[in-house]
Amino acid sequence: MSDDDTFDAGNGLLGRRAFLRAGLAGGAALLTARANATEREPWMRAPGAGMSESGAPSRYEDGLARVAISSQAGTTGSGVSRTPLEHLEGIVTPSRLHFERHHSGIPDIDPARHRLTIHGLVERPLSFSLERLHRYPQVARIQFLECSGNSGGMIAADPPQAGCGAIHGLISTSEWAGVPLAVLLEECGLQASARWAIADGADAAMMSRSIPLAKLLDDAIVALYQNGEPLRPSNGYPMRLFVPGWEGNMCVKWLRTLRVSDVPAMTKDETSRYSDLMADGRSRLFTFPMGVKSVITSPSPGLGLGPRGRYRISGISWSGSGRIRRVEVSADGGASWTDAVLDTHVLPKCCTRFQAAWDWNGAPAVIMSRATDEAGDIQPTHAALMAGRAGNTFYHYNAIQAWRVDADGEVHNVHA
Amino acid sequence: MSDDDTFDAGNGLLGRRAFLRAGLAGGAALLTARANATEREPWMRAPGAGMSESGAPSRYEDGLARVAISSQAGTTGSGVSRTPLEHLEGIVTPSRLHFERHHSGIPDIDPARHRLTIHGLVERPLSFSLERLHRYPQVARIQFLECSGNSGGMIAADPPQAGCGAIHGLISTSEWAGVPLAVLLEECGLQASARWAIADGADAAMMSRSIPLAKLLDDAIVALYQNGEPLRPSNGYPMRLFVPGWEGNMCVKWLRTLRVSDVPAMTKDETSRYSDLMADGRSRLFTFPMGVKSVITSPSPGLGLGPRGRYRISGISWSGSGRIRRVEVSADGGASWTDAVLDTHVLPKCCTRFQAAWDWNGAPAVIMSRATDEAGDIQPTHAALMAGRAGNTFYHYNAIQAWRVDADGEVHNVHA
Repeated sequence: MSDDDTFDAGNGLLGRRAFLRAGLAGGAALLTARANATEREPWMRAPGAGMSESGAPSRYEDGLARVAISSQAGTTGSGVSRTPLEHLEGIVTPSRLHFERHHSGIPDIDPARHRLTIHGLVERPLSFSLERLHRYPQVARIQFLECSGNSGGMIAADPPQAGCGAIHGLISTSEWAGVPLAVLLEECGLQASARWAIADGADAAMMSRSIPLAKLLDDAIVALYQNGEPLRPSNGYPMRLFVPGWEGNMCVKWLRTLRVSDVPAMTKDETSRYSDLMADGRSRLFTFPMGVKSVITSPSPGLGLGPRGRYRISGISWSGSGRIRRVEVSADGGASWTDAVLDTHVLPKCCTRFQAAWDWNGAPAVIMSRATDEAGDIQPTHAALMAGRAGNTFYHYNAIQAWRVDADGEVHNVHA
Repeated sequence: MSDDDTFDAGNGLLGRRAFLRAGLAGGAALLTARANATEREPWMRAPGAGMSESGAPSRYEDGLARVAISSQAGTTGSGVSRTPLEHLEGIVTPSRLHFERHHSGIPDIDPARHRLTIHGLVERPLSFSLERLHRYPQVARIQFLECSGNSGGMIAADPPQAGCGAIHGLISTSEWAGVPLAVLLEECGLQASARWAIADGADAAMMSRSIPLAKLLDDAIVALYQNGEPLRPSNGYPMRLFVPGWEGNMCVKWLRTLRVSDVPAMTKDETSRYSDLMADGRSRLFTFPMGVKSVITSPSPGLGLGPRGRYRISGISWSGSGRIRRVEVSADGGASWTDAVLDTHVLPKCCTRFQAAWDWNGAPAVIMSRATDEAGDIQPTHAALMAGRAGNTFYHYNAIQAWRVDADGEVHNVHA
């Protein structure tokens, strides 16, 4: 597999054509089989631990925690924690590792007392208990949730030296199940002038966002379950709004009221925050769908390479506009590109895993990924993204991420 | 919605036609909106808890544990624990709630020492470290895993009175990610006479099964990740065989050796166990694909009904032969049936969620579900399944499950 014909792009990248037959023969040598395959390891010499109510990760896996946890000065509950993307594979994020963004901490809600109230421009204002919501039709979809502040540190001229999750981990993917808003809004009856709904959370900040009714009627749900089980408190227990593909804070956690209106409310979380100051002095308000994006999760900072040889490049890609259509990878800083392989599940508004094989020759290299979605949108370069913006604007950052691999195999974050 | 035209089957069942518009107006009355939607609940009056490394379930959710945990007399590590199916929605099972079946407990494996050795009828016997496996292509697929002993208690003339998970919870669904066996076997080079591989686990029982090579080359993987994170010890850390759709114990946990052979090994776990004695005195050996099956998870024993009115029927269906094509439900003990609604993700060899709306009139009723897969197989009745078998054979039980709803709303397990 070491002929020049094997390579689809510069600096040793194997593309889709060769990937599924990508043995390591062309790279490093394999271990030969042990002389005696029946030799007993210590853990085979006595029965192991018994059954339990709840399975835990191995004691050898110490990377499985949220990372880059931070709170605003003077608060304990206004801040973020991030998903350790570089330690995960496939597309699902374990619920306990789903990123957090809270504006006034996690309320300890008694589900028997909690109600969802829909009022405003409706024929019949109604309150729904959890028990009542469970009687309605539900839908379950595997979809991503991304904070619009994700990757915001990348606007710095010197990009942050940290792990992939610490930089880009305000994205997670779950199976979200709950009741379609279309069903609940129909139950209430919309008045003719209804155009928006203002969603409030039951946290102390009463986190609040305005959402176009057309989107709520299209594919939004009142989510009750995440990855099979009832939502966890840090993700909105007992119920949250889930607005597929749109910026994370519209998926209001601990959802308490939906006030149907003819105009948006212009809350602080859609005006002073989550809006983007542009280079021409104007501001972008209501940037709802998250832009097409991708990142190589391995190799990545802290997950470097060993000796030269064949390695697997693995990453995630997503778009708020629908399915991922294509991910290209480069191992020569963008001079040449080849198609990565998209994994089995290519779902709308969901992370898609991509991978490629790379024969690393041991020299320094810059690796990158570039995603295209079914709407035809393609990730911009860092320079192109920043050129249109005021320098201090960090929301909605979706530029191409470059990792520099040094001769010693260590990986660093660079703009390229 | 209470006209007779609404109903698609006897005793108040709404079918696919009406389901997605199934408000509760025809059933029980809704709560009206609270007079003051801005009243503050206690948990809104002060900031809540801060960010954490790992999110936990709500303290109000006490059903989220494995159930019906049991070990064989005289052992601590030979037994089972089951998934609490009745508390879950969607299709994914949280990894900590994935069922367990161990033959000598859970080994505490050091991943740095563990090797997968492939030997026997190959050109190049090879050992793979975890680090080396990570360099190969991977695939991730969302698929079910079912123990062939699942639901075995149902062969009793008086069926067990227990929760849905306690009866049927030896099935779970995960995103399994790992290296295709086809890639690793090609690396080793198969000899012309190779037909089977004998898989051994690194537990003290050296759990062992024979698997046709054709299946391994088709869609089996060496799984390294479950639901995004490295496998948990109770599910085979650091690696297990995953053989989509086939009986669970072929997915050998803690996979240590694959010996390629021309014949099966006839291990105890494929002869004395996991084979089925039939009524004509013969035994069925090597029943590999799990049969088409479904169960209503709600309502179910312990999850009964309140006052008469409209309820949601929800359940899971699956088949080892491919996709689920159809699930029918009955609310009159099988006298009439209508199509349930299949949820978003209908994936091959994966659980598919189904649901239907039911106007319960408050009288006793028997509810059932009946699945058909894309191979055209359909779930048998309990009587039909048992008629072909010797009475003490409990593996591969996939008959239609009936729940009896009493006038007080309580649910019991019955043969129907």
